[in-house]
Amino acid sequence: MEIRLEGLPPLQELDPDGRELLFKGGRTVYAFDGRPVPEETLASIWELARWGPTSANSQPLRVVFVSSTEGRERLADTVNRGNRRKVLSAGATALLATDDRFHEHMPTVMPLRPDYREIWEEDVETRSEIGRLSAALQAGYLILAVRAHGLAAGPFSGFDPDEVTAAFMPDTGWRAFMGINIGYPALEAALPRFPRMDVDDVVRWA
Amino acid sequence: MEIRLEGLPPLQELDPDGRELLFKGGRTVYAFDGRPVPEETLASIWELARWGPTSANSQPLRVVFVSSTEGRERLADTVNRGNRRKVLSAGATALLATDDRFHEHMPTVMPLRPDYREIWEEDVETRSEIGRLSAALQAGYLILAVRAHGLAAGPFSGFDPDEVTAAFMPDTGWRAFMGINIGYPALEAALPRFPRMDVDDVVRWA
Repeated sequence: MEIRLEGLPPLQELDPDGRELLFKGGRTVYAFDGRPVPEETLASIWELARWGPTSANSQPLRVVFVSSTEGRERLADTVNRGNRRKVLSAGATALLATDDRFHEHMPTVMPLRPDYREIWEEDVETRSEIGRLSAALQAGYLILAVRAHGLAAGPFSGFDPDEVTAAFMPDTGWRAFMGINIGYPALEAALPRFPRMDVDDVVRWA
Repeated sequence: MEIRLEGLPPLQELDPDGRELLFKGGRTVYAFDGRPVPEETLASIWELARWGPTSANSQPLRVVFVSSTEGRERLADTVNRGNRRKVLSAGATALLATDDRFHEHMPTVMPLRPDYREIWEEDVETRSEIGRLSAALQAGYLILAVRAHGLAAGPFSGFDPDEVTAAFMPDTGWRAFMGINIGYPALEAALPRFPRMDVDDVVRWA
């Protein structure tokens, strides 16, 4: 395969509205107004998030969008008590999972290194590390992609991964690690903004 | 502490330019033009990324921005061979780490649950899981925040974590897991766009 480096379009800055929407003004929402979120919108959220970078373009994240009434009731019975009402009031919930067999796609997604399929078939520890890190990176992109669609996101991890995996993704090799409630916020939907770490606590220079 | 739920401002959609900049048009850059990135810009990238959500607002990510000539040369000698030239040509490199002692900040960052400090002092396994997941979410926000500043990002994990941790964050309790080269792309800077997984391979409905 011939490799050509590509020129890139000139870069711009994200405008203040975009910064507010995705980062500064974004809030984790705990109560939604129950309005459904159409499957086309959920698919569009995925289509936007999937462009974010992952290790060797491995893209180990998998998603079960729970949007039917039956599905949301079943999920509400599975998550921790504190998350039940949130799940029931959301328009949909994205269950995020890592595919333990993501390396089988490497010849397609990373044509420069089709050999990663065999390497990671053997090296389960590296595969598991890459899967965990890159799936979580993709979860971050997905949260911001929800906001980019004018919807509120309520990420949560208060559930038993074994139980959710067995109930919503049996026979897939996927494993659930997080959920994101998606929808339109109820009138009083968020807790007060809690403080963020100061740059001096978090950043060093070298 | 009195808890009041807050009303939220009306949500909007991210405009097409913003979607292109952060997601669809964003490219991992492998060669930079060497122009430095000022410390104010690096701090501003952090200030934007820090608003993204984490488990219980735990914010376990820590960052060492390597931007001095001496620091970049030292880093280039530490990373895997394939990443040396990238590090040397970048304006700066952000080394991302997880702080194993992040729970000490819980009374400040999550005033509703100051007891998480003691709970996670004991429960090292849960602490480690939360640290790993939330630090990786924050890494995703940071990559997009770099792009939001009109700069290119080149995330990489090709280095020995023990070595980078010892060289750049000794005596901190932090542990490096990923780097992001930051700067202005060279004229021919990116590999061809590799394919993303189709929605039917990745998404299920329930």
